[in-house]
Amino acid sequence: MSLLVVGSVAFDSVKTPFGEVDEVLGGSATYFATAASYFTDVAIVAVVGDDFPEEHLTFLKSRKINTAGIERKEGKTFRWKGEYGYELNEARTLDTQLNVFQSFRPKLPESYKSRRVVFLANIDPDLQREVLSQVKEPALVACDTMNFWIGGKRDSLIETLKLVDILLINDGEARELSKEPNLVKAAEKILSFGPKALVIKRGEYGALMFQKGKIFSAPAYPLESVFDPTGAGDSFAGGFMGYLTSTMNFEESNIRKAIIFGSVMASYNVESFSLDRIKALDYSEIESRFREFKALTHFEDLS
Amino acid sequence: MSLLVVGSVAFDSVKTPFGEVDEVLGGSATYFATAASYFTDVAIVAVVGDDFPEEHLTFLKSRKINTAGIERKEGKTFRWKGEYGYELNEARTLDTQLNVFQSFRPKLPESYKSRRVVFLANIDPDLQREVLSQVKEPALVACDTMNFWIGGKRDSLIETLKLVDILLINDGEARELSKEPNLVKAAEKILSFGPKALVIKRGEYGALMFQKGKIFSAPAYPLESVFDPTGAGDSFAGGFMGYLTSTMNFEESNIRKAIIFGSVMASYNVESFSLDRIKALDYSEIESRFREFKALTHFEDLS
Repeated sequence: MSLLVVGSVAFDSVKTPFGEVDEVLGGSATYFATAASYFTDVAIVAVVGDDFPEEHLTFLKSRKINTAGIERKEGKTFRWKGEYGYELNEARTLDTQLNVFQSFRPKLPESYKSRRVVFLANIDPDLQREVLSQVKEPALVACDTMNFWIGGKRDSLIETLKLVDILLINDGEARELSKEPNLVKAAEKILSFGPKALVIKRGEYGALMFQKGKIFSAPAYPLESVFDPTGAGDSFAGGFMGYLTSTMNFEESNIRKAIIFGSVMASYNVESFSLDRIKALDYSEIESRFREFKALTHFEDLS
Repeated sequence: MSLLVVGSVAFDSVKTPFGEVDEVLGGSATYFATAASYFTDVAIVAVVGDDFPEEHLTFLKSRKINTAGIERKEGKTFRWKGEYGYELNEARTLDTQLNVFQSFRPKLPESYKSRRVVFLANIDPDLQREVLSQVKEPALVACDTMNFWIGGKRDSLIETLKLVDILLINDGEARELSKEPNLVKAAEKILSFGPKALVIKRGEYGALMFQKGKIFSAPAYPLESVFDPTGAGDSFAGGFMGYLTSTMNFEESNIRKAIIFGSVMASYNVESFSLDRIKALDYSEIESRFREFKALTHFEDLS
């Protein structure tokens, strides 16, 4: 019952057709840990600058998130600025300031090294392996990545994938990584790189999970109002990994349930800017939406 | 147990990244009736030219499709030419020759007028109502349409929708018809025009069905090779309406099953050019793929 995530803790400035926010709490590790915290205890490895307000750390601790691995360095916190059109499917990045993240060399606090489940969020694949090498006995390792690393550090990424049980990426990334336009063929190729399971996130179209010879398709929750998709993929991963860690059951049927919990967390996340919606959920709301996913997808057997 | 479809019977010339075909059998009514013929008996209302070969009619009859309503007129048969890129999601129309279809005034043979279930494929909404008015006692009416009518004959289309139980369109059409980018809001608005159910076809992303306060999400079958998407929507509609007609049960749970049968037929259809794959299926293949849809989407309840 112990989950570790390495990733970014950041300030996001986001504009969508429904509003805009300036320098709010964001970052892959933040979204991931907050979503996962409803299922299990989780520890963050990340770096922030000396401009990072204590209140954000207080919030994370209030969710029982272990922040001992959040290093505070001289300089400014990682900043990202982006905007979404009405499609809401893809962000247009307006500005990225890596700041203290540029020289990030994740070092695990001693207490983190015995964590059994590891999520390597979207960072340099060299760093992903560096983190993983510090974990004594990982039982389950999952990772995310992005086009930037697929294009720029392909060999290193392939090395990381050899050590990973589950890869979570979006459909465009799956196509780029495999060089296959067809997702079924893409998945087959990616599984040959090492992961035992591949979860392809497709935004408003849900998620697909591939294991050797098996496919699971989960819809996205149909929402009347999507305010801000920022962090949806990381919230998905947090719900997914959080549930798996809470059960320590990595069988296919349980991975399917984990995908639904991931989808639930992503669906709540996009209902507001920043972490506003997922920072204060009741677990009953999570279960209730899980049941709605069941109602959404159920159909009777052949008679 | 009697289904009627009005739509096009045509020659298609199609190019995809995987090959091309020239003047093969196509048209909305052809795909629809062929797919529906695995579930129920079906009758076509359409028009062809004097260049339409007897062998195509022989094929339709071999599927027990009633062709008495296929009028043969002097002139050339409707022709469509299009191509698809690697995305395979949207056809680029290269040429449309309406030919005898231009002056099509559907007139139902006497034996057709007592049919209980009617599918108005994508034709001029004026003609859709003209057909419907000739049916004595319809128990279920469904229709399709396209951007061309939504933009050019909106008022007439709205009149048709008042008479329709189920509307089947794609996501772009739903957005255009409702003038709402969000599909949940779009569906709500479209249902206010008259239909009791709306099925939104999303190609490789499956289908959504909306009824007042209820949503069902069905995935598309993940295929390794999609050869030609032409006719996928009409095959979907054929499987969907064929199953509903065979059961005459229009309850929500049965409409859900019908959507899966529609998805099965669409998935087979895109595996080949023209009707090559769906013209000679075993019903056991249809049931087998239905079960695969179940395996694809199933997840356990909350414990």
